[in-house]
Parts: sequence; C-alpha cells; structure tokens
Amino acid sequence: MLWRLVHHSMVAIGIGLMLALTVPDWRALYGDSLSDAFDVVALFFVLDFVLRFYAAPGAPGGEHRGAWRTRLSWLVSLAGVFDLVAAIPGLIALPDNRDATLIGFIWVFKYVRYSPGLSILERVIANARQALLSVLLGLAIVLLAAASLAYLFERSTDPAFSSIPAALWWAIVTLTTTGYGDVVPHTIAGRMLAGVVMVCGIMVFALLAGILATGYAEEMRRREFLRTWEMVAKVPFFHNLGATLIAEVARLLRVRDYPSNAVIIRRGEPGDCMFFIVEGEVEIELHPQPLRLESGAFFGELALLTGAPRNATITAVRPCTLLTLDIVDFFELLARQPELARVIHEEASQRLGPGAPVHAALKAMIARDNVPAS
Amino acid sequence: MLWRLVHHSMVAIGIGLMLALTVPDWRALYGDSLSDAFDVVALFFVLDFVLRFYAAPGAPGGEHRGAWRTRLSWLVSLAGVFDLVAAIPGLIALPDNRDATLIGFIWVFKYVRYSPGLSILERVIANARQALLSVLLGLAIVLLAAASLAYLFERSTDPAFSSIPAALWWAIVTLTTTGYGDVVPHTIAGRMLAGVVMVCGIMVFALLAGILATGYAEEMRRREFLRTWEMVAKVPFFHNLGATLIAEVARLLRVRDYPSNAVIIRRGEPGDCMFFIVEGEVEIELHPQPLRLESGAFFGELALLTGAPRNATITAVRPCTLLTLDIVDFFELLARQPELARVIHEEASQRLGPGAPVHAALKAMIARDNVPAS
Amino acid sequence: MLWRLVHHSMVAIGIGLMLALTVPDWRALYGDSLSDAFDVVALFFVLDFVLRFYAAPGAPGGEHRGAWRTRLSWLVSLAGVFDLVAAIPGLIALPDNRDATLIGFIWVFKYVRYSPGLSILERVIANARQALLSVLLGLAIVLLAAASLAYLFERSTDPAFSSIPAALWWAIVTLTTTGYGDVVPHTIAGRMLAGVVMVCGIMVFALLAGILATGYAEEMRRREFLRTWEMVAKVPFFHNLGATLIAEVARLLRVRDYPSNAVIIRRGEPGDCMFFIVEGEVEIELHPQPLRLESGAFFGELALLTGAPRNATITAVRPCTLLTLDIVDFFELLARQPELARVIHEEASQRLGPGAPVHAALKAMIARDNVPAS
Amino acid sequence: MLWRLVHHSMVAIGIGLMLALTVPDWRALYGDSLSDAFDVVALFFVLDFVLRFYAAPGAPGGEHRGAWRTRLSWLVSLAGVFDLVAAIPGLIALPDNRDATLIGFIWVFKYVRYSPGLSILERVIANARQALLSVLLGLAIVLLAAASLAYLFERSTDPAFSSIPAALWWAIVTLTTTGYGDVVPHTIAGRMLAGVVMVCGIMVFALLAGILATGYAEEMRRREFLRTWEMVAKVPFFHNLGATLIAEVARLLRVRDYPSNAVIIRRGEPGDCMFFIVEGEVEIELHPQPLRLESGAFFGELALLTGAPRNATITAVRPCTLLTLDIVDFFELLARQPELARVIHEEASQRLGPGAPVHAALKAMIARDNVPAS
Repeated sequence: MLWRLVHHSMVAIGIGLMLALTVPDWRALYGDSLSDAFDVVALFFVLDFVLRFYAAPGAPGGEHRGAWRTRLSWLVSLAGVFDLVAAIPGLIALPDNRDATLIGFIWVFKYVRYSPGLSILERVIANARQALLSVLLGLAIVLLAAASLAYLFERSTDPAFSSIPAALWWAIVTLTTTGYGDVVPHTIAGRMLAGVVMVCGIMVFALLAGILATGYAEEMRRREFLRTWEMVAKVPFFHNLGATLIAEVARLLRVRDYPSNAVIIRRGEPGDCMFFIVEGEVEIELHPQPLRLESGAFFGELALLTGAPRNATITAVRPCTLLTLDIVDFFELLARQPELARVIHEEASQRLGPGAPVHAALKAMIARDNVPAS
Repeated sequence: MLWRLVHHSMVAIGIGLMLALTVPDWRALYGDSLSDAFDVVALFFVLDFVLRFYAAPGAPGGEHRGAWRTRLSWLVSLAGVFDLVAAIPGLIALPDNRDATLIGFIWVFKYVRYSPGLSILERVIANARQALLSVLLGLAIVLLAAASLAYLFERSTDPAFSSIPAALWWAIVTLTTTGYGDVVPHTIAGRMLAGVVMVCGIMVFALLAGILATGYAEEMRRREFLRTWEMVAKVPFFHNLGATLIAEVARLLRVRDYPSNAVIIRRGEPGDCMFFIVEGEVEIELHPQPLRLESGAFFGELALLTGAPRNATITAVRPCTLLTLDIVDFFELLARQPELARVIHEEASQRLGPGAPVHAALKAMIARDNVPAS
Repeated sequence: MLWRLVHHSMVAIGIGLMLALTVPDWRALYGDSLSDAFDVVALFFVLDFVLRFYAAPGAPGGEHRGAWRTRLSWLVSLAGVFDLVAAIPGLIALPDNRDATLIGFIWVFKYVRYSPGLSILERVIANARQALLSVLLGLAIVLLAAASLAYLFERSTDPAFSSIPAALWWAIVTLTTTGYGDVVPHTIAGRMLAGVVMVCGIMVFALLAGILATGYAEEMRRREFLRTWEMVAKVPFFHNLGATLIAEVARLLRVRDYPSNAVIIRRGEPGDCMFFIVEGEVEIELHPQPLRLESGAFFGELALLTGAPRNATITAVRPCTLLTLDIVDFFELLARQPELARVIHEEASQRLGPGAPVHAALKAMIARDNVPAS
Repeated sequence: MLWRLVHHSMVAIGIGLMLALTVPDWRALYGDSLSDAFDVVALFFVLDFVLRFYAAPGAPGGEHRGAWRTRLSWLVSLAGVFDLVAAIPGLIALPDNRDATLIGFIWVFKYVRYSPGLSILERVIANARQALLSVLLGLAIVLLAAASLAYLFERSTDPAFSSIPAALWWAIVTLTTTGYGDVVPHTIAGRMLAGVVMVCGIMVFALLAGILATGYAEEMRRREFLRTWEMVAKVPFFHNLGATLIAEVARLLRVRDYPSNAVIIRRGEPGDCMFFIVEGEVEIELHPQPLRLESGAFFGELALLTGAPRNATITAVRPCTLLTLDIVDFFELLARQPELARVIHEEASQRLGPGAPVHAALKAMIARDNVPAS
C-alpha cells in the first residue's frame, strides 16, 4: 500500500519534471536542479525494475534453472514489460540528459497497471479487434478516395492540395470532423465532396460507438457476475435457494462497499432495493434501542414490501460489503420463488408486527400462492 | 406550486441580470438599476436559505438537540447544499458588488433540484463511475503522449509547440475533434501523429457512448418498473392474474398521463396498444350515445384483436392516468396466459357482437387452447 | 401514385427555384422567369391545400355541421398542418415577391409526410422526450457556467470575451466540439476550462447517443413485430403451431419483399435462413425441370439442416412477400418445438431423398427427442 | 495463398505509385520510371480480370451457352464487379497516362473482398437501410432550413452568405460539427441559429450511432452462432446434451483459435472460462509428467469449480480450435442441467482427488440436487 503510494508519487513527480524541463523559461532558471531531480526519478525506476526482476514472484533463489526461467516469464508478462518500459527513460537519460527526458511520458503507463477499469477497456477492444480493424480499413479506403478526388478538384486553385499525400491531411481532418480550417476546399465539387466525407465521418463514429457499446455491455455483465458469485457463497441465506436459482440470483445481485459510519439507508427516502450483509456490521436506528445486524442478515425489504418510505436510518458500524437486490429483480424473484417470498415475508411480518400494511399487489401474490396451507 | 414558480422566475431574472451586467453598453446605461435588482435577487436567495434551514423538515422547534441535528442533516443533504450554494452570490455580492455578480450563474443549479430527468443522468454517471474514470485516465495518457511527441516533431517549426504544456493545448483540441485551428502541425510526422490522435478521439467518444448507453438503458428500465408497479396495484383486473405473472405484467405496462379532453384514441388510426384506466374517466364516442368508462376498466383491445383500425374516438373526460400495453407484449401475454386471453376475448365479443372478424392467427389461438370446453 | 410523383416534383422544383433566386448572378439574368415559376409553384400548393381542406376525408358535403367539423379535425391533424404550412409561401409570396421566396424551404417538410422512417424517429424522440430535455437542461447549465468562467478568465486579453453573452458563442462552439476557431482562449486557465468543456461535450454526445439508441432499438422491435404479425396469419403452416408459440415465432420472423425475377437464393452460397411464402410465386432451378412454389410453401431449409451450401438457385417469378427465419432462431425454434422439427425434417427428407447428410448435431436432436415412436 | 499475397502487394504498390506520381518533386525526378511501373500494375489488374472472367467458377469451357452464362453471372456478382473496377485504371491509363493515374485509388476496394469484417458492416448498413435514409433525409431538411435562415440573417454582413447554395456550405460544416471556421456567422440571430444547428448535428450523430449499434449487435450474434454451431457438432461431449439444450449451448460457446505453442492457460491466473477441444492437442504441465488432451476433451473447469487460481499452465501442442464457455454461462448451464453438472463434477473430482475444496455455493448446488441418490 505504502509502496504503491511512493510509486504513484514518483510517476507524478517524474512527469511534472519532464513537463517543466520543456518550458524554456523554467529551464533557464532552474534547469540544473530539474535535471538532477529527473535523474533521481529515472534512477528510481531503473532500480525498481532491477529489484523486481531479481525477486520475480516464485523465484526465491535456490533452484537456479527454475529461478531464471520464472524471471524471464515475468519479464515477458504484462507487469514485466511495463516495468521494463518505465526503466527506459533512466537507461537513456542518465548518460545524456538532453531530449531524452522527453520519453519520461512513458511513465504514465505505470498507472495502467493499477487501474482495474482500463483492463476492461483493453479486453473490450481485444474482443472487438476484428470489427475495429474492419472499420479502420473502411476509414483508410474513404480517406484515400477522398484525398484523390479532392486533389482532382482542388489542385488548380489551392496549393494545399498540390499532391495526394498533401490532400490526405485535409481528408483526415475532415473525416474525423476535427476541421482545423487550415486547408479548406473552395470549388463547388470540392465542397460537395467535403460534405460527403463529413457524413461518412459521422457514420464511422457511429459504427465504432455501436461496436464498443455492444462489447462493453457484455464485458461488464461478466465482471459483475464474477464478483457477485464469490460473495453469494458467503451468505447462508442463499444456500437455501434451490440450485437452479442460485446462478440466477447471483446475476441479479450487485456488490456495494460502504466505509465505516456511512449511511446506507436514510429514513424517509423511497425504498428501491434490499441488502444482504456479506461482511461487516450495520446499525438500525430504532427507538427504544438500536439494533445491530451482522454478516448473513438482510435488511431493507420492508419498504419494498409495504411500498412506504424507509422507516429507519441504517448506518455501517464497520466497513461493510453488501449485496443489493434491486426492487425490479426483487419482485421478479419473489414471483418465481414462492418459498423465498414466504421466508422474506415472515421475517418482515415479525419486524413490522401483525396487521402491517403490505403493498396491495404483493399481498395478493403471497396470500394466493405462497401460503397454500392457510 | 406557486412557490416553485416564484423560485424559477427569480432564478431566470437573476441570471438575466448577471448576463446584462457584463455587457459594457448596458452597464454604462442602466448599471445602477441592474445592480440594485441583482442585490434584491441575491438577498432573496439568502433569505430563502435561512428560512429553509430554520424550518428544516422534521425540525419543529421543541426538543432543541434533535432540531439542530435535523437542521445539520438537512444542510449536508443534496437539497441543503443546493440552497446554500444559491445563497453564496448574495453573501459575496451584497458587501461588494463588482465581479461578484459573476458567480450568479450558480443559481442555474437550482433548476437541477426540480428536474427528474437530471437525477436519472446523475445516477447513470454514478453507476458507471469506475468505467468513466478509466476512460478519462486513458484520455490523460493519450494526451500526454501526444503532446510529448508533437513537441518533439514540431518545436523547431512552430512556436505554438515550444513546450509540452503548450503542446497539451493542441492535443486536447485535437483529441476531442474540436479543431479550433489556432495551432496546427506542419511537419509530416506531426500530421501523422495528429491523424492518430483524432482517431483515438473518436474511439474515446465511442467508448463513452457505449458505457453511458448501457447504463442509461438499465436505469430507465428500473424507473419505469417502479412507477408501473405502484399503478398495477390499483387496477383490480390485474389482481386476478397469477402471482407469477404480476411482476412480469408490471414490466410490460407503461404509465401515460392525459389531461382533460385529450384525445387518447382517434377513430381510423391503426391500433397499436390497449389501455387500462388507473385514475380518471374516459368517454367512447359511440353512435346512439357515448359510453363512459371509469377506473379499473380497459379499452382499445378491439383493434388489436381484429386487426382493423380503431372504430371509435376516445377522449379523457377528467385527467387520466392510464397503463398502456403494447401490441407486441399483448400477444405475448395472451399466448402465455390462456385465462387472460379468454377474459379479454369475452369482453371484446360482447362489445363487438357475435360473428365479429377476429384476426386469423388469434382466432386459431383462442379456439384451440383457450376455450377447451367449447 | 401519379399524384405523389407530381407532388414530389413540385417540391423539388420549388426548392430549386428558391435556391436559384438567391444566387445574385442568376437573379440578374433570369430573375423574372424564376419569379414567375416560383409563383406558379406557390399557387399550386395553395390550391392543393384548399382542395384537400374542402374534400377532407370523411367530409363529403351533405350534413353541414359534421362536414365542417371533420374539416377542422383534418386541419389540426398532422397532414392538415403540413399542407397548411406548404401553402404559406404562396400566401406571402404572391402579393409581394421579394424575400418571401425564402420561406420556400418549408416545402421540404412535405417530404416528411411520405417518409415512413421519419415517423419512427419522431416517435423515438417523442418517447425519450423527458430524457432529451434533461440533457438539454444539463447542456444549458454547462454552457452558462462555461461562459461565465471564460468571461472571468479571458475578458482582459480578448475582446471576443467582453461579455457573458459574447462568451456564450465560444461556449456553444466548444461544447459541441465544432471549434470554428474564430474565438479561442489564450490564458492558461481559459484553456484548461476549454479542455473541460470539450470533454463535457463528448459526454453530452455520448448520453444522447445512449438515450436514442435505447429508444430506437425498442421502437424497431415494435414495428417489425406489427408487420410480421399481419403476415403470419396468411401462412397456413403457422396455424398448426401451438398458441403459445405463435407470438414468439412472429417475433423471430422478418418480412422481405422481392421484385419480379429477383434472385432470392444463389446456388453455392452458404445458407443462413429459410423462407416462407406469404404472397407471390418462386421458381427453384432444378435439373430435369424447375419447380414452382406458391403462397404458403416454405423453402431454403435444406442448407440449414445439412450445413451444406445452397443446392439450387431460387428466383421470384412474381413480386413476392416472404417471411425469413434466421438460422440462429431456426435451431432455437426446432429445439423448443419437437413437432415443428419433425414436420420440417420430413419435408426436407422427401426433397433430399433418404440417407441425405444431415448436420451431425441436428441428427442427434431429431433422432433422440422428436421421433419417439421410431 | 501466394496469389493473395501477390495481389495485396500489387494493390499496395499501385496505390503507392499513384500517390508518388502526384507529388510534383518526385514526378519531376522519377516521373518516367514511376509511370512505367504504374502501367505494369495497371496491366496486371487488366490481365487478372480477363483471366478470372475466362475461368469464372463453374465455367470450364465445354457447353458454350452455359459457360457464357456463368461468366456473365460472375460478372454481375460482387467479385466480378470488384475485379472489373480494378481493371478500369488500366483501360484508361494505358493509352493516356496523364491524370488517369488518379483513379488508381479504386484498387483499394480490392481489399474489401478479403476483409470478413467489412462484410459484416455492409450487411448491418444494408439491414438498417431504411432508417439510415430517413436520418439522411432529416439531415437534408435541417441543412436546407439552416442555410435559408442563415442566408436571411447574415447576407447583409458577410459575402460568404451571399446565396443559399453558399450558405449550404456553412450549414454542412456546422451540422457535422466539423467547424472549419472559414465561414462563421456574426449576427446574434445567426449565432443562435448556429447553436441550434450544432445541437441538431449532435442528435443526428447520436441517432446514427443508435441505429448502427442496434444492427451491429444483432449481426454479430448471428455470425458467432453460425461459427459455433458448426463446431459443436464435432465435440462428442455435447451430443449427450438434451436436444432442447444444444441450440442454447451453441449460443453460449465462443470459438477461439490458438497457434502452435501458444499458452492457453497460465498457472496462477484467475480462472474465468473452461475449454472444449474441437481440433488440435494441448499439453497440461503437470509435475511427474505432462498430460496431453486431444479433440473432444475439456479442461479448465477446475478453477471455475474451486474458485482457486489456475493450477497448471496449458499450451497448444498443435494449432488448436477450442470452444470456450465463460464462467457466467458455465454456472447458468450447470444450474439448468443437473446431469451436465454431475458429469463435469465427476471428471473434476477425479482430477483433483477426493476432498478437494469446491466453491461453497456450488457444493450446495451439487450436493442437494444433482446427486440425489447419495
């Protein structure tokens, strides 16, 4: 944890120094001290790499052959490559300080290693690889065609279109709808072409959005399920569900983390989900004396059942990991699982006392199907 | 209601005054009166805040400790923060009128409190927090890399790229495909880099669209269900549905509000949904004399069953809240719920008279499965 | 049909004349004739409106009260409003020809009436009304805040930021990532603000895309179902399906229209769907002599069952309306409906002859479950 | 394969030559040799077309009538059109070399033939044809209206708005948010109009994204299924599944190809899917001696069942085609198919040895429902 903080600070400092070193005024004033500081940071990352390489996970000296093999396999792993890359500025900058400082920006990739979200994006892009390449190929075709035609239409009036490679600059600026305005068509044909290119640009945009949206939705569903699945096993309540239901329930639940003293439910708010405690402890602010619930218990189902606002504030006593079940899924689950409806209803009745006002539609549901004996 | 109108007007007037105060011509002419008016608006919001703070919901004087506690908890709630923020211009502008008027624009946030749609967006963004941050981190990495490379390629030809911080301006303008055109690369390497940055910009766009589209679709589904669920309990017709079906039906229905005299169905239009009356009263324009239906009744099912256009115009006599069932879901429901199909078909037969032309596919459906005894 | 063609031509001519009238060179040369032609077109639309108003559908003279009522109800209907609007240029331009010609562009809205696709978009936008308004409100808030801050940062260096209303121009150009470049911030604070505004612009974009994508997908599903549902009733094959299945099948099928002589299936192509004939006649190019299939028959299932490429070219003899069932849905349907699998398999066996090579997985499916008696 | 490589190289060379020929400096220096090289490439594609036409698939000389018919049908097929188009530069450029070289860019369309991804995009666009045309019509309406109004507002102050056709250029640049900045409105009314046009542009963008995203997701689902369906038939394991399940399983699986020596599973990584071998052979690095699995076997299920990280590295010995089953779908499948759960569990128990730590939730699932006899 501390190590990560030091790491992040070094990255930030290193990048800050690199930025500062390129501003002429600052360089003139503090050039030497900035350079020295930069060297220190660069050296830090070189050492960091060397140490990590030596102590590669699963390579604790001893058996020499295996240790080197593990080190090499670490080197070609993602973590190893990132650390090696971070060492490069040091390797180049230490002997010769000029310009080499520029590649300090690659330290920013270090952040990538610690960002869980980026790995989702990576995977989405990797999965949609083929489709993305197709769009880029389509883009290349449009670019080349546009540049050729623009060259044909505009070359006599505008020196910026004096060759197709030059016209390509206009084409990419137009196709991405960036539109710097440094190169602009003037003939009528050229302007009509530009209009078509812009609309094509919008279509390319839209296709990419479609591809990535589809992939992202799928990947997120996968991640959420993996996290929830782990948690479900820890709540005894769910062990009583039939086997056919447990995978389905896991897909409906969501994991939420609350720090100490966080307000989970505020009295008077409308109720839109119920909670299961995986870890931690919560306190319900009841009148005579507050009630504490621990791992395995559930709460928040009353507002869903009665349709009334939350009737008590609930706070986390210790850091909590909760599973939440949304109201939409709650009713769907109840409808499909009469046994579950009965358990939750009994617990709720006990908490509310007899004769409590239950949501009309629900009452019908429970009365008719779920308590057949009564 | 009136209070809300006054509130909205004050916000609009306040912002109008602030805009006017910054136009040199108007300031010269009407500066003093504008300033005075601005002070009045600012004072209004200060008083508004003080009164609301004192009369915080659930703090009716009396028990002192509790009242202050409620006030504080109101202060840190969303409503409290918004009102406090709205009071700031007054607190600053009243002693010294210059420049301080500028922050009048924060009054516009007052609108946020009254907009139900914005709260959806808030929640979507909050839910996708992690993914959005990842995209922004990715954006930062691309920005820094692009600025460093552009500085390397362009610094000798263009003073606008004289330092990396300066090149960052170009990078953000290019990555977002804004393309002001005030800073433009001129070397071939720089232009190729620009092309890559623009395409990256499009990808970032597309990723964000994917993330937000996924989240938005899910949140809307949730809201719709909550609203419909409340309504379903009020229509006796649905109480007869089996418990397993009620949650599912609630997901298919949509709530629609109609003011007095609104035309709900126009004669001759194709029929694409049927209606259940939750509240209000409708009039069916039939020939000998119009027919009135009240809360609990349903209508509009004939056009669905016969496939013919609507055979009567139906208007709201009083403001109505209706539940609509789309034709797609209507047939799906009928197919899964023979009992429901029979009830609707009987009611429809009665309205149409015997021998009415029923949609061919439907007739088969009802004849074979739903009326087994006949 | 002819009337529609005349209509469309008049719209095109009218708009062409309006464009031509604004080009100074052409006006100088042919001004008078262009004006006269424009008057003719304008008069045409005035007459068109008057005639349609008089002959409003369902108002055949006679009963005076009712006729006028129908006319008025036509006037406030969508069709009436469009025709009235199209008459406006005539009403204004005829007495005074200058400038009034400009509003000729509203004739373009006439096209709207005949475009089925636009009505989908209209409905999508209408359904997502609330969410779109929220985004626009959010946009307004960001705009105002950005303009205020930009005014604060830039007013001393740039006359284009001399008042907040002036700064609003910069804000909208930046937020939509249009980036004309006529007004550009120069201070560091202003540029950082601009960066934030651009990223906000991208987010707004993405939110709109999400909202409209969600709504569009839903609306399309609805339209497709409506069209298919009508067709399903005309194919006897589907009448034998159980009632529970018919609505589901209708959702899987898609309507496709083929003109005379169109090639529906080309020999040697991979098979990805099967076809049911609703209307028309197709010819299968078989060796000894071609085979003709008429309304109610199905074809194209062989390639799905055997996994081999199409073994015959099939063309439309007369204009055909077909229902297509995609391979994905085909297998899903077969798996859920053993009876259906048996019928299709028997028909296919007969066409193929005994011992034909059936797709391995399918053979298992049919052998084990669907022909229990054998 | 070799032919394809030659083809691709000729396309690349041809386009490179065309680009080079338009750069004045290079033309002056190497004009003649470039021209000659271009002629060679052009001739190559002419010959390529002639040969392909003569040897059109299914036209092996002999029966003359049929052969010509096949040739013609090849000519109007997609492949034929592409090859004909590629021959055009040769037909034009050979007699007269000037300017005609420009149309060399159409060779780039040759790439289209070999890109599987582009055919997906083609089909998505074809399916959404109607909706896309509607959006383009809407775009045309907005363009015309915007240009007319801009002409009205700006014509007196800016010669760039001197006619509606001229104003159309501004309108398209603004609507697509390209914003060159060469034509910019200066009046207040013109700027407000511009703001509205920009927001409309964003909406058009968003609509397109929605349309294409919907279509793309559907088309991808279709393609994946087709590929998987073919593979499923080759894995004996799936033949034992009930017929109702086989289509569903095919939809959950994904095809993955691995080259020789590729690492499929790395020891210590978290397990997120299991694998079925369709073709090829894999090696599991176990301690006493490695284990080899061939076509029909499955692996990787242990980490899913125990929740522990992968316990062995698995590499492809020969090029492998695998079907992967994601953890989300794995548990869903197990829950719905107790028999399948038992088979996988037994195999896993054997591999793990008795008393192995199984994921808590799963143990409950298997214990209660799946092995009823124990």
